[in-house]
Amino acid sequence: MRATVLHDVRDIRLDTVDDPKLVVDTDAIVRTVASCICGSDLWPYRGENPLRGPQRIGHELVGIVEQVGSAVSTVEPGDFVIVPFAYSDNTCAVCERGVHTACLNGGFWGSADRNGHFVDGLQGELVRVPLVDGTAVKTPSQPKEALIPHLLTLADVFPTGHHAAMSAGVTTGSTVVVVGDGAVGLSAVLAAKRLGADRIVAMSRHQDRQELARRFGADEVVAERGEEGAAIIREMFDGIGADCVLECVGTDDSVKQALRSARPGGNIGYVGVPHGVKLNVPAMFGRNLGLKGGPAPVRAYLPELLQDVWDGVITPGDVFDLTLPLDQVAEGYRAMDERRAIKTLLTI
Amino acid sequence: MRATVLHDVRDIRLDTVDDPKLVVDTDAIVRTVASCICGSDLWPYRGENPLRGPQRIGHELVGIVEQVGSAVSTVEPGDFVIVPFAYSDNTCAVCERGVHTACLNGGFWGSADRNGHFVDGLQGELVRVPLVDGTAVKTPSQPKEALIPHLLTLADVFPTGHHAAMSAGVTTGSTVVVVGDGAVGLSAVLAAKRLGADRIVAMSRHQDRQELARRFGADEVVAERGEEGAAIIREMFDGIGADCVLECVGTDDSVKQALRSARPGGNIGYVGVPHGVKLNVPAMFGRNLGLKGGPAPVRAYLPELLQDVWDGVITPGDVFDLTLPLDQVAEGYRAMDERRAIKTLLTI
Repeated sequence: MRATVLHDVRDIRLDTVDDPKLVVDTDAIVRTVASCICGSDLWPYRGENPLRGPQRIGHELVGIVEQVGSAVSTVEPGDFVIVPFAYSDNTCAVCERGVHTACLNGGFWGSADRNGHFVDGLQGELVRVPLVDGTAVKTPSQPKEALIPHLLTLADVFPTGHHAAMSAGVTTGSTVVVVGDGAVGLSAVLAAKRLGADRIVAMSRHQDRQELARRFGADEVVAERGEEGAAIIREMFDGIGADCVLECVGTDDSVKQALRSARPGGNIGYVGVPHGVKLNVPAMFGRNLGLKGGPAPVRAYLPELLQDVWDGVITPGDVFDLTLPLDQVAEGYRAMDERRAIKTLLTI
Repeated sequence: MRATVLHDVRDIRLDTVDDPKLVVDTDAIVRTVASCICGSDLWPYRGENPLRGPQRIGHELVGIVEQVGSAVSTVEPGDFVIVPFAYSDNTCAVCERGVHTACLNGGFWGSADRNGHFVDGLQGELVRVPLVDGTAVKTPSQPKEALIPHLLTLADVFPTGHHAAMSAGVTTGSTVVVVGDGAVGLSAVLAAKRLGADRIVAMSRHQDRQELARRFGADEVVAERGEEGAAIIREMFDGIGADCVLECVGTDDSVKQALRSARPGGNIGYVGVPHGVKLNVPAMFGRNLGLKGGPAPVRAYLPELLQDVWDGVITPGDVFDLTLPLDQVAEGYRAMDERRAIKTLLTI
């Protein structure tokens, strides 16, 4: 089969690799219908995360089950499934508490599992899904073609935006600021709206992203950044800042901007993988700010979010503004790297 | 009148100073019935906070209103009042959101207010209370003598423990670990119990404090510290750690111990004023830990907590294990500094 391999900084190729096989009886083999490229894939692509030699990549997928191990009970060949960005058993003490991305038996795509068996990256044609009962979720029936981009966002980007909102405690009536206008930030706007936020401000300098933010529920847009942007935000919210700030970038600057935009006693939900973030703890303490976040437990959120996507209540797949066949995956990365695309969908 | 003045490191004296006077029409003058010494008073006493010359000190008080300004409406001469460790207007946008320690017009005791008028420290015989309507809370009637220590804890230490629990989201069924066995840590045990925690572990090495922790509701005590203590805690809680960890010290070591004791997705409520705390943000992110806390908004919590103290439901004043007349305030500090006392009550 063909799968995406990152060979070196900005050197990404679609290689021919061995087909995956069932290894243990809780595995399934899934044939990809669509995958996509994540902002976090750009960290290793740009060399901002160290490369460990040529590596398989990708962690978002929808597809059709081809084969299942003998212990699998929730999916069968032919089922259409969503495969989240982490695999998990959905039964351990940590999963029971809804934190599937820290599952005691789980892991991430593109490297060996706890038993030393290789786990595919998800920008490829086929994938071995470990612990499939605890990982993948099937749709109620075969989806219409038009629904596929929206379902694909449920593998990562939309639940990640949702996780930012949940981590910041967004609820009916909350005032919300979203830092970051990438696909996660835009998803966070949609998630905050869905959770009943009263007023949402998106921080964005790009007109196309501003428009999508408004379509997803942003009431206002602030283009200024840093302390200037935060000062405008505070002014907009009673001179004190917003209840909830959703940090969807992960840099030291964006986290600082988020902290400055929150009111005393406010909460920052952060889902941008932190790179070089240094926190001023006494300042956070003095203002009673809360900080919570991490890798989104997609599997925990999937049943609830899938229902809304299936029913057409939300259309999170609108974040895709570029669709390419898998053999143009390198162009997909370039377009996102150069900010020509918000998010690239890869078809098989 | 006489008031406590910190002259230099470990040089604290009861000096004769000018009586306070009403300055603005929202002030009251309150005559002290009892005050006390806080763990945080030890930071400047030990020179761990820089001294700015001789300074008035103390921020916990119960007393009798002597005089009120013409704009005061909620208290009158003769009322018995609890005076929290911060003054606040109880009407600004921040107070409306329950964060009175960040009140836009508020401040702390022992230095000038926003108008440049000196505000007394509370280890003295009389005090000018600014913004008394938004700061002090009166008791339903004159309290019995035996109730006074319990009422005095409502000025700071008990609501601070309560704030740790609230910041960590303690609720019915929570599993809780308390780091720190000072008066705040012990108060946090009592607060967690009051909020319905299912299982509470106090981390303490001192037998007298362990006993009080158990009396306040701790189910178990762990004497080990650091990674060793955290490993024991994780083992006690399904191998993963507790839902809520209440950090009541403020050092880098104690915060690290708190973070290590929480389960993935758990919450750390911190109320120990941070000194030299450095956070490993990627590690916190990877485990989806939440961190929230700061100076407790005592005024917000007072009505609810006062009711339980007044009704005898809780006896938070049991943290006082030394009572001295105000003229022995220096011995009170020494006893706490040398860990001979958990908390010193000062009578007039």
